[in-house]
Amino acid sequence: MKSAILTVGTELLFGQITNSNSVYLSQQLNNLGIDVLYHYTVGDNPKRLAEMIRQAFADCDLVITTGGLGPTQDDLTKEIAAEMLNDELILHQDILSKLESYSKRANRVLTNNNRKQAFLPSRAVRFDNELGTAPGFALEDKGRTIICLPGPPGEMTQMFEQKVKPYLQEKTEDVIYYKIIRTFGIGESMLETELKQWIDGQTDPTLATYAKEGEAYLRITSKRSTLEEAQAAVDDMIENINQKIGQYIYSYDGEDLYEVVGKKLLEKNISISSAESCTGGLFAKTLTDLPGISAVYDRGFVTYSNKAKMEELGVKAETLEKFGAVSEETAIEMTKGLKKVTGSRLCISVTGIAGPGGGTEEKPVGLVYICASLDDKIICKEFRIRNISRSWNRNYALLCMLDMVNRLIDQA
Amino acid sequence: MKSAILTVGTELLFGQITNSNSVYLSQQLNNLGIDVLYHYTVGDNPKRLAEMIRQAFADCDLVITTGGLGPTQDDLTKEIAAEMLNDELILHQDILSKLESYSKRANRVLTNNNRKQAFLPSRAVRFDNELGTAPGFALEDKGRTIICLPGPPGEMTQMFEQKVKPYLQEKTEDVIYYKIIRTFGIGESMLETELKQWIDGQTDPTLATYAKEGEAYLRITSKRSTLEEAQAAVDDMIENINQKIGQYIYSYDGEDLYEVVGKKLLEKNISISSAESCTGGLFAKTLTDLPGISAVYDRGFVTYSNKAKMEELGVKAETLEKFGAVSEETAIEMTKGLKKVTGSRLCISVTGIAGPGGGTEEKPVGLVYICASLDDKIICKEFRIRNISRSWNRNYALLCMLDMVNRLIDQA
Repeated sequence: MKSAILTVGTELLFGQITNSNSVYLSQQLNNLGIDVLYHYTVGDNPKRLAEMIRQAFADCDLVITTGGLGPTQDDLTKEIAAEMLNDELILHQDILSKLESYSKRANRVLTNNNRKQAFLPSRAVRFDNELGTAPGFALEDKGRTIICLPGPPGEMTQMFEQKVKPYLQEKTEDVIYYKIIRTFGIGESMLETELKQWIDGQTDPTLATYAKEGEAYLRITSKRSTLEEAQAAVDDMIENINQKIGQYIYSYDGEDLYEVVGKKLLEKNISISSAESCTGGLFAKTLTDLPGISAVYDRGFVTYSNKAKMEELGVKAETLEKFGAVSEETAIEMTKGLKKVTGSRLCISVTGIAGPGGGTEEKPVGLVYICASLDDKIICKEFRIRNISRSWNRNYALLCMLDMVNRLIDQA
Repeated sequence: MKSAILTVGTELLFGQITNSNSVYLSQQLNNLGIDVLYHYTVGDNPKRLAEMIRQAFADCDLVITTGGLGPTQDDLTKEIAAEMLNDELILHQDILSKLESYSKRANRVLTNNNRKQAFLPSRAVRFDNELGTAPGFALEDKGRTIICLPGPPGEMTQMFEQKVKPYLQEKTEDVIYYKIIRTFGIGESMLETELKQWIDGQTDPTLATYAKEGEAYLRITSKRSTLEEAQAAVDDMIENINQKIGQYIYSYDGEDLYEVVGKKLLEKNISISSAESCTGGLFAKTLTDLPGISAVYDRGFVTYSNKAKMEELGVKAETLEKFGAVSEETAIEMTKGLKKVTGSRLCISVTGIAGPGGGTEEKPVGLVYICASLDDKIICKEFRIRNISRSWNRNYALLCMLDMVNRLIDQA
């Protein structure tokens, strides 16, 4: 199957937002074995939108649109999709009722614009929107399929995952199986070099490397006539890869590092607390992104000022004076103090220079000390993060913290 | 002038990289008063590339391409651009000499593919590449202009900034001026309804509304013959808008709410500390995204467990037992305790149910209490956030916290 992705939104043409929908959909479609030939982006202009859909169908049998399904009068994707695939919009009473009760709860008036969202092409396969008001749908005509999805990435990705993927899987013949391998501590180009023999000679399974803020990851995909064959091909490749770069791998299922760490903490019932300076709560925030983590996460301190480090964690004034707030000594005292205050089995602290200001020749922006203890074991490491930006530096420090915790738990 | 941006690269269609070139060029072109009608992305396929250029010129007088100028045989953008604009490639001897000496230095053989980079359309305005080997160029024919730039973002942006911008400025007459107005507490469709009279009758300045996680914002754009005229038109419109929805506006310069709050805290030198339960450090993390905030941000507590709420903030066991951790009473005690521990002028605490689990009929997921104090003034509010997802709920609670702090500071 050949496809085009068409994202609708003036804000994209103004450069106000990054086109994350095209990235996500490209990955997903490729994972399903569907070739992506084009990305198109157009504003809220019906004539141009229609022209693009027409052009896409010259080469493709599938067009996926995002955006333009909302309540404003500029939102015309649905109307145009119906017209081009010879269909008409009809009212879905249950959607209208849902919109009405939602407006009532929110103490808002249901405008005519809002009402528009309850209309869909008559032959459409409907995809309900559990996170927003605009439903998505698939519509077929003469071997051409158009799938219209909402623009907000959260709504779009959930709808794709839960509804569009099964719908598309039924349409494809070969079975696709893939695994996403997540790594930390190895760059994308080094990863590519290490795995060159399989990337270059790839027919099936195929290997592709991707870069993500501070991380590199791998997708291994096999397209076979049965699921068993595809799985076996991917598993064999994973064995090869493990021998080359196993020490950098933290997940074989595409999970984020914080999820891997959080789940292990829950599984092994290890209590944890954190004390952060340069990351300013990013570690606590990220770990508590995981639902249910309250069973093991006790508390966190954001000891931004020196006073807070002394009062909350008992860091000594002399230590701060002699070695500075950003030092191995301070990090160790933070973790020891945290342990004393909380009694948590796992304690982790971080102190560093996030930038852009505050760096010196001796202690440059990006210098970070992380100290973690598990029961009686304590380790402290210095990191010199390549200074790219405050947000990059903080995020990289977070990954270093999670990586350290992950390895500590594995040794427990 | 009307333009299309055409990015060439298979890695974009695989979703391996984000299309940052389109974002950058869209911003730059809009700032120059050049409308962007389309983004196109295509792989290394000459037929499709030619088809896209042809389609773009149906509506546009300017097409900017990135990518496909490199040394491999797949790189064909230049050849196709020349063909479509009725020109031929000719050898630039000085580029070839540069390539030859570069290969020599790198101890490499100059292949025929490499040599390809020394050829340009005969009528092209050449843009030398100071960071890489592939030069860019502009080519005109019968009122149509194509500008071909290299794909690597670093090379492309430097070439645009130094060479393409002056080239385009000479071609444009009008001046563009715009403002981004950020709001909180009003939805996008309500915003549109309130401003309908100006959105519908828009010629200049134009108004456009956008939605962003939990927020709606507005872009007001004027295109006039002088900067003064454009500024005056935008400023007049802002006065109108202020009268309608002024109470929801927190920025007239596109700044994020946390930036607005952080800058006010710094400007007024108001010390601040935070205590978080359901947001798990998100408030602390977000406020400390701002460089220099350490001058006023003292510390934060992530009191996730009840034990932590009692030990760190002095919340009474009876309060937690009688009213629960998610209650007005607990929020107030958290803030009072925080004030006692830190002495910060501004203290803010939050407790709520982020979900997906933990909700009851009486206390559903999305129920949040936020309590803030500034000097002797203390306020506490209940929020019932529409439960979309854990991450949405936490983010919306964060915005409510920032909004409360912002209004408190304004009253100080």
